[in-house]
Amino acid sequence: MALETPPGYRAFDEASLPGHLAGIEAARAVLGGDPSGWRAFEVGDGNLNLVFIVEGPDGDLCVKQALPYVRLVGESWPLPLSRAFFEHEAASIQARHAPAYVPRLHHYDPTHFLIVMERLRPHVIVRQGMIAGRVYPDFARHMADYAARTLFFTSDLAMRAEEKKAMTATFCGNSALCRITEDLIFTDPYTVSERNRWTSPQLDARAAQIRDDDALKAAASRLKLAFLAEAQALLHGDLHTGSIMATEDETRVIDPEFAFVGPIGFDVGKLIGNLLLSHFAQAGHEAEPRGRDGYRAWILETVEAFWNGFSETFRGLWRENRTGDAFPPSLLQGQAFEAAQGAYMARLFAESLGFAGCSMIRRTLGLAHNADLERIEDPNLRAACEGRVLDLAVALVKNAHALGAIEEVTARARAIEAQGRDRAA
Amino acid sequence: MALETPPGYRAFDEASLPGHLAGIEAARAVLGGDPSGWRAFEVGDGNLNLVFIVEGPDGDLCVKQALPYVRLVGESWPLPLSRAFFEHEAASIQARHAPAYVPRLHHYDPTHFLIVMERLRPHVIVRQGMIAGRVYPDFARHMADYAARTLFFTSDLAMRAEEKKAMTATFCGNSALCRITEDLIFTDPYTVSERNRWTSPQLDARAAQIRDDDALKAAASRLKLAFLAEAQALLHGDLHTGSIMATEDETRVIDPEFAFVGPIGFDVGKLIGNLLLSHFAQAGHEAEPRGRDGYRAWILETVEAFWNGFSETFRGLWRENRTGDAFPPSLLQGQAFEAAQGAYMARLFAESLGFAGCSMIRRTLGLAHNADLERIEDPNLRAACEGRVLDLAVALVKNAHALGAIEEVTARARAIEAQGRDRAA
Repeated sequence: MALETPPGYRAFDEASLPGHLAGIEAARAVLGGDPSGWRAFEVGDGNLNLVFIVEGPDGDLCVKQALPYVRLVGESWPLPLSRAFFEHEAASIQARHAPAYVPRLHHYDPTHFLIVMERLRPHVIVRQGMIAGRVYPDFARHMADYAARTLFFTSDLAMRAEEKKAMTATFCGNSALCRITEDLIFTDPYTVSERNRWTSPQLDARAAQIRDDDALKAAASRLKLAFLAEAQALLHGDLHTGSIMATEDETRVIDPEFAFVGPIGFDVGKLIGNLLLSHFAQAGHEAEPRGRDGYRAWILETVEAFWNGFSETFRGLWRENRTGDAFPPSLLQGQAFEAAQGAYMARLFAESLGFAGCSMIRRTLGLAHNADLERIEDPNLRAACEGRVLDLAVALVKNAHALGAIEEVTARARAIEAQGRDRAA
Repeated sequence: MALETPPGYRAFDEASLPGHLAGIEAARAVLGGDPSGWRAFEVGDGNLNLVFIVEGPDGDLCVKQALPYVRLVGESWPLPLSRAFFEHEAASIQARHAPAYVPRLHHYDPTHFLIVMERLRPHVIVRQGMIAGRVYPDFARHMADYAARTLFFTSDLAMRAEEKKAMTATFCGNSALCRITEDLIFTDPYTVSERNRWTSPQLDARAAQIRDDDALKAAASRLKLAFLAEAQALLHGDLHTGSIMATEDETRVIDPEFAFVGPIGFDVGKLIGNLLLSHFAQAGHEAEPRGRDGYRAWILETVEAFWNGFSETFRGLWRENRTGDAFPPSLLQGQAFEAAQGAYMARLFAESLGFAGCSMIRRTLGLAHNADLERIEDPNLRAACEGRVLDLAVALVKNAHALGAIEEVTARARAIEAQGRDRAA
């Protein structure tokens, strides 16, 4: 099967890419010298696209190109090239609101669905860093700032309704990428699906229990409806630790190709869920039992600092920028405005925890798993970690509204980890 | 000031319209005979557009044309011609899902932003009928069916996400009409605005009290956010009794030019709010005190039958058409599905009541009032009616979540009417 592509499109490789970039002024300006000396290396370890590093005498670049299918699977799973357009659109908007936390964009090529951007070096994918037990002291602060800025400034709290609706209309076109989330996160893990997989037989009973839990499935269905219908702000759409590159001092968010206008809690919750998942995975990566107790503590502090920092920054931005159509300043001031903010954040907190739980369940029982858990070779140990992920995740999806503060979530994570350890001992 | 219009556009009048219609096959087919014998009558009593009745030897038509401004105000309040496109789009979709309750569409002329449709005869605008004390025995059943069908089938419960997103994107373009609602319903009445007016001085203190009620304004702000960001289904967008024409047997919904993808409760609540407003206006139209007690009872029965019928029909359609992406049938069946439906409807009920309250407040304190109240000549009597409208409206906006059934709402309406009568006596 050969998938149809628009006129002029071709997928580049290491040999053909430099010649194409030679025609792009922004690339020449960064790489310098004679294009015949440029070298391209395909480095894509993601699931969907081609990713190249290109080196020239004066500098280097990252080039990302969409394929008409899911790279990991092949032509049997087509996926629109337009995802590159949406990624570039979203990245441009995010760069406007949070320039410190996104790679610099140099060029978008609409014929080849190709983005030319800053090569991040020596930044490492945070998921890999966390598997290695690396501490990122400013990660929580940076991500709180990134999330608060990108989400607040694209919401009805900051935008005029006309501009917000125009942005919403644009990103409605990214429906194929949304479909992946709708199916893989909110549906498959709760039902029998060929796409699901889990550590078997260890988790067979647990997976069946989840498929039989009506209250859980009703809560997941409500969250799916929110994902489908709550057009609150422009989301990154896939904000897990694999979409963040960092050094000790810097944090950069990449890959917003799942961007769309959706519920704010989905971005916030996906990051919290992936951090909590990393917490429970540490038992599979420590050199001796409890060898990473300090690292686990850092992760939970990071979860707390991320939510609390996000909440505080979001509220601060809102106080200072009452430029949108929602919650007009002519109606609410002073104490009344603070109270309305509090109610808004409480609702957002509960929804974020629900989305966090969904993203943890899908990484344990669904199609796409995380290296955090996948790299644990001993299946019994891995299943023990995954069981703890599921314990917390189910509580988050079902009982998010009963949790009043992020410290209650981290306390529960600590308790589940301790109980699991005691059971294993 | 002359507003710019697209090439080819001109506003028709009674003299020029027949010649233009002569070039439209669908019009010729209905009107018949020689176009030189057709007669057009401008009958628009609405605020925004030109509306003509055109009569020919074989039949008649209704022709609606958008002007580049608000008709009632003039060129100083520009309004996009594109509202005719959105009205025709929405009417076409509604005709597909609820053909019994909308006028037949014959033609759309994109150059002149002109819709050619069925002339409804002898249907009368329901608001006028209710001022006259006319009973519409099937109104509640028809409107429950209309609302359930148009809203369910354009929601994520029935539609595939890709189609829903495409529809959402289209109607994001109708932002200028949404802006009217955002400002006039959700903002102005709660603040000092030149556009507000009310029966003065009788309601001065009451208007000030509402402008000072922080809990009310916070609730109204939450509802405004829902209007801005909850993309649940394709709404009519202006579903009051002035947008419905009826006979004793037939009910037709007209004028969906405010259509957009928004919160289902807005359509449902606007109708409930306008019925409740009519209930409180009856004291200004009865020949002798309590002369319309029976009619008041019919209105409240209609409110109950509308919500209960809507709820039952909506749930029934949902049971039979689980074709959308939300609440996938693979996750929820039997009792669990019924429970999820119940929770969904409870939330929708509360949101509908909030919107009902907002629409009652704006008709009493905002720019656009209703004939129901405006036609009451004695300002003291009118203010007494309006005060009762506000009593119930404020309770609905602030305490919607405490009301479990529509019968509690109508009981409260009955009590407020009785108290007001006792106070007046």
